[in-house]
Amino acid sequence: MTQMIAQTFDVKGGPHMGRDNLPKLREALKALSLDGFLVPHEDEYDNEYLPDCNERLLWLTGFSGSAGAAIVMQDRAAVFVDGRYTFQVRDQVDGDLFAYESLIENAGAAGWLERNGRSGERVGYDPRLHSPDAMDRFQLAASRAGVELVAVDQNPIDHAWTDRPAAPTAQIIPHPDYLSGEAHTSKRERIGIALQKGRADAAVITAPPSIAWLFNIRGGDVSRSPLPLSSAILNADGTATLFVAPEKISDETRAHLGNEVSLRPESEFAAGLAEYADKTVRVDPASASAWVFDTLTAGGARIQKLDDPVLLPKAAKNTTEVEGARQAHIRDGAAIVRFLHWLDTEAQSGEIDEIQAAQKLESLRRDLPELRDLSFDTISGAQGNAAFAHYRVSEASNLKLARGSLFLVDSGGQYPDGTTDITRTIPIGDPTSEMVTQFTRVLKGYMALARVRFPKGTTGTQLDILARYPLWQAGFDYDHGTGHGVGSFLGVHEGPQRIGKAPNSVALEPGMIVSNEPGYYKRDGFGIRTENLQVVSEATPIAGGERDMLGFETLTLAPIHRGLIDVTLLSPDELAWLDAYHLDVRTKLTPLLDDITAEWLRKATEPLYGATP
Amino acid sequence: MTQMIAQTFDVKGGPHMGRDNLPKLREALKALSLDGFLVPHEDEYDNEYLPDCNERLLWLTGFSGSAGAAIVMQDRAAVFVDGRYTFQVRDQVDGDLFAYESLIENAGAAGWLERNGRSGERVGYDPRLHSPDAMDRFQLAASRAGVELVAVDQNPIDHAWTDRPAAPTAQIIPHPDYLSGEAHTSKRERIGIALQKGRADAAVITAPPSIAWLFNIRGGDVSRSPLPLSSAILNADGTATLFVAPEKISDETRAHLGNEVSLRPESEFAAGLAEYADKTVRVDPASASAWVFDTLTAGGARIQKLDDPVLLPKAAKNTTEVEGARQAHIRDGAAIVRFLHWLDTEAQSGEIDEIQAAQKLESLRRDLPELRDLSFDTISGAQGNAAFAHYRVSEASNLKLARGSLFLVDSGGQYPDGTTDITRTIPIGDPTSEMVTQFTRVLKGYMALARVRFPKGTTGTQLDILARYPLWQAGFDYDHGTGHGVGSFLGVHEGPQRIGKAPNSVALEPGMIVSNEPGYYKRDGFGIRTENLQVVSEATPIAGGERDMLGFETLTLAPIHRGLIDVTLLSPDELAWLDAYHLDVRTKLTPLLDDITAEWLRKATEPLYGATP
Repeated sequence: MTQMIAQTFDVKGGPHMGRDNLPKLREALKALSLDGFLVPHEDEYDNEYLPDCNERLLWLTGFSGSAGAAIVMQDRAAVFVDGRYTFQVRDQVDGDLFAYESLIENAGAAGWLERNGRSGERVGYDPRLHSPDAMDRFQLAASRAGVELVAVDQNPIDHAWTDRPAAPTAQIIPHPDYLSGEAHTSKRERIGIALQKGRADAAVITAPPSIAWLFNIRGGDVSRSPLPLSSAILNADGTATLFVAPEKISDETRAHLGNEVSLRPESEFAAGLAEYADKTVRVDPASASAWVFDTLTAGGARIQKLDDPVLLPKAAKNTTEVEGARQAHIRDGAAIVRFLHWLDTEAQSGEIDEIQAAQKLESLRRDLPELRDLSFDTISGAQGNAAFAHYRVSEASNLKLARGSLFLVDSGGQYPDGTTDITRTIPIGDPTSEMVTQFTRVLKGYMALARVRFPKGTTGTQLDILARYPLWQAGFDYDHGTGHGVGSFLGVHEGPQRIGKAPNSVALEPGMIVSNEPGYYKRDGFGIRTENLQVVSEATPIAGGERDMLGFETLTLAPIHRGLIDVTLLSPDELAWLDAYHLDVRTKLTPLLDDITAEWLRKATEPLYGATP
Repeated sequence: MTQMIAQTFDVKGGPHMGRDNLPKLREALKALSLDGFLVPHEDEYDNEYLPDCNERLLWLTGFSGSAGAAIVMQDRAAVFVDGRYTFQVRDQVDGDLFAYESLIENAGAAGWLERNGRSGERVGYDPRLHSPDAMDRFQLAASRAGVELVAVDQNPIDHAWTDRPAAPTAQIIPHPDYLSGEAHTSKRERIGIALQKGRADAAVITAPPSIAWLFNIRGGDVSRSPLPLSSAILNADGTATLFVAPEKISDETRAHLGNEVSLRPESEFAAGLAEYADKTVRVDPASASAWVFDTLTAGGARIQKLDDPVLLPKAAKNTTEVEGARQAHIRDGAAIVRFLHWLDTEAQSGEIDEIQAAQKLESLRRDLPELRDLSFDTISGAQGNAAFAHYRVSEASNLKLARGSLFLVDSGGQYPDGTTDITRTIPIGDPTSEMVTQFTRVLKGYMALARVRFPKGTTGTQLDILARYPLWQAGFDYDHGTGHGVGSFLGVHEGPQRIGKAPNSVALEPGMIVSNEPGYYKRDGFGIRTENLQVVSEATPIAGGERDMLGFETLTLAPIHRGLIDVTLLSPDELAWLDAYHLDVRTKLTPLLDDITAEWLRKATEPLYGATP
């Protein structure tokens, strides 16, 4: 897989794509007697990363963001993006061809259809690419506008896109029990029992991370996440059918899957769903498409609309997975420390640029034999670029790590035993007092969330404010979530738990890995974020207390830059926590480092308690 | 109204009631060919306080708690209560007649019906007393058990209850514009416009507090909350019909309501609902009964299931109401200070009991000419009694304020310009160091929530943890919410905002009044709670900050006992906040106090910053 690791820094997309391809889609629609077509960013796997062949929105519009949509009519069209992409969409999409619209405000694409659809128009959609909830909104909007929505069997974009890449066929490999901690027989059985208890005969599993976890397999169909693109049905007796391209399955993987898992080509998924007439089938409307629901209903199945039964078991890592995560973080931490040492020395010249820094970090991770992939494209942000929380460096945007500025780097690796994700902010030259104060406020929030003990039943929505409180009290905030779940050699973004302002009703359970990543972003100035992964630990007593409390164990190991901390703003408890963390970092990483790096780490992790401000 | 203020300390209810009355209900059911009957605590107004004539659950079972239910079959019966009433129900209800069951666990009363109902049984219910959601659960349970649910026109309890009190007919009085801050014409108009925007022709308003707010009227049909029991329909053009017993309406009130508000007897409510055939009518399933939904549907109306449109406008007090609350809290605070002075002197003897203390406080409030009622029965808890967060003292439970213990008192008053609710915890004799430490932890949580600044859109679910964090970190928690909304001369418990662990999606808006009342309860030991009311203030800039932030202004004015505070556990910021609060208390209350009390207050509010521990 390693040939896929290398990052590229070219700018994908651009207005020429819409100019070239929009007319082709309109021709294809004419052949189908359609007046328009709905184009979501999502593919049928509803995953964060798409294989190139499913980048239909990019092909049509030239927009390369990770979320969005378009509606194409014969005489008008609109592209829909969220607040992150307000500027990017104007660079990448021709405004004469597509009106720029909000994906969120004014009811998004459905709202546009209601306002701009004309009575009698026939608008097509590919039901494999939309959730049933999204289609409900479109159907309501269409009925108000007098528009008829028409499901298509074949996506007209795939017809018009003559040089469309082939679907990926990466080999699927077993994920061994010594890494997963539980045989897939056991996983299938216990989730089957959960289905029985819920009076379901089977569950349709369409999310590739759920399939990877359930069958203990990993694939390589998309970059940055070892996913096997496929679909599955799990029966309540623990048997299952995996619908997957046969060429992805080696003899070893076939043997690993065993007799209780039937293999069928993905083209037979519809036929497989049709075999559940009069059965009760659990399906998750948050991940399965309207096509799955329609196909099951047409086949006579009773649908149980409930969450994917794999989500919670997958999120709560077992002891083997947690120990794997610890090991992956020690390994990854050593690479990060080598990088931070380099940043604190060579990169202080002011002559290094964002791409060079990202490549340096990539090369240090690639030196690790266990590395399988990065877990996402590195966010390497210098100066004002770092003020975009989701910044992605390109040749066009590439800035120098200038002296007197901050450098923000958010990165991670995929290892067979764990997935990592870490952000550090580093001063280049001398930071201003504003930078130090804001960094320290972010750090106080980070530490409150790292140290919190909490009772069973607590959700990430409840904890979120801990990370924001010091910023709020000073009149600041950040416009992103505080923490996301992380997979075990799977997606770096994983649900169902989440730490953020948005309501989330999933209680944090022992074994769940989440990020803790508050930040502060000063427009045209600088960006600050400190991110560690932490795992929910078992409920344990607290000396002198009455109730057992859950807590977090910090997994990520790398120093937090002393030069950005105002110790006078920290309480004795906070200083003690930080010193203990730094001691842990030093103790665990020093054995992996050469003498010079180890000496740098020793200084970078010296106790702050009692240090002269 | 003042003759209703006096508290009683007798024990209502008891097992004799079930022994007397259960057979009477069973007879009445036979006459209706019913095998059983569902008996909720709620009446048709779904309000916290019931008039005596609607205490059907108490009459049937002898249980006097504020939430519960019963199911009576000819040969078996069960009473359902929540965790607060586990002990009380055993005292009050004969276990030979009623099985004790959980209102919450095992799907509550509906779950009991599913498990214990027998195929073919006919079970009656009064659709005016159940929400549509509750009836959906009962219908599902009944269908699984093969039970038939039968709606009754007349409640058989009302037939069997031969000495049932008459319905209350307290006069309804206008709530003048100088107190409400907005004429009811304006309120009806702007809510009518909201209905138009939501494409509704009318809204059914069944919650008495909403009716009181909408029409600027107050009543006296139940104790502790000035509610006019009645029902209403508001049309999108701002006109309305109030369905209310004519004898409650004086000429003055009729003139106040004017021409746009039609008055009809409450017996005509069904006929009024039937006039909305082919109209779209907004109804709140959280407050309106299944009967309202059934009647509207039978009459041919289209129902829009949405929240009561009065809830949010009522919750966000206008500047007149907020200023009224300030004045009410100064007045109430002076009475509280007189009481705290008495507690700190006479009550230190150890010979005062809980009832005497509650009566002393009541008499000090009754000395205020503006007092209209208490806002709830005083929680006067000494020693281990205070460890029950919702304790209500009776002759049977009455304990002394013994030396070496804590006394917890939670009380409030109803004034024309505002409703108050305050809790203080007072040491009698010398407190233990455990008491001081736990009091200080609770205080730290209280102050974090009092001081917080937060952005628009923040909910009480997000803020809740601030009040719990110091307790959680030490292994403690409390099993109740942190804050509830409070009305303006209306209910002391008011939604829709709430500060607690439970998900609540209502953003806090300027003018909303909430309580802030963390606590700690040591079983068989002592109880601690500190409660002030606070109002959400407008979003304002913070010096040096970027974003305007909402915050809280503390309304309640009374010292927090210095003898229970360990200043070494407080940060300089916390000490500064507390000293500033105490200075505010002293400044605003001293002019209302005699010299001796003023001198006591001066000492009770001396600065703690720099004080010797």
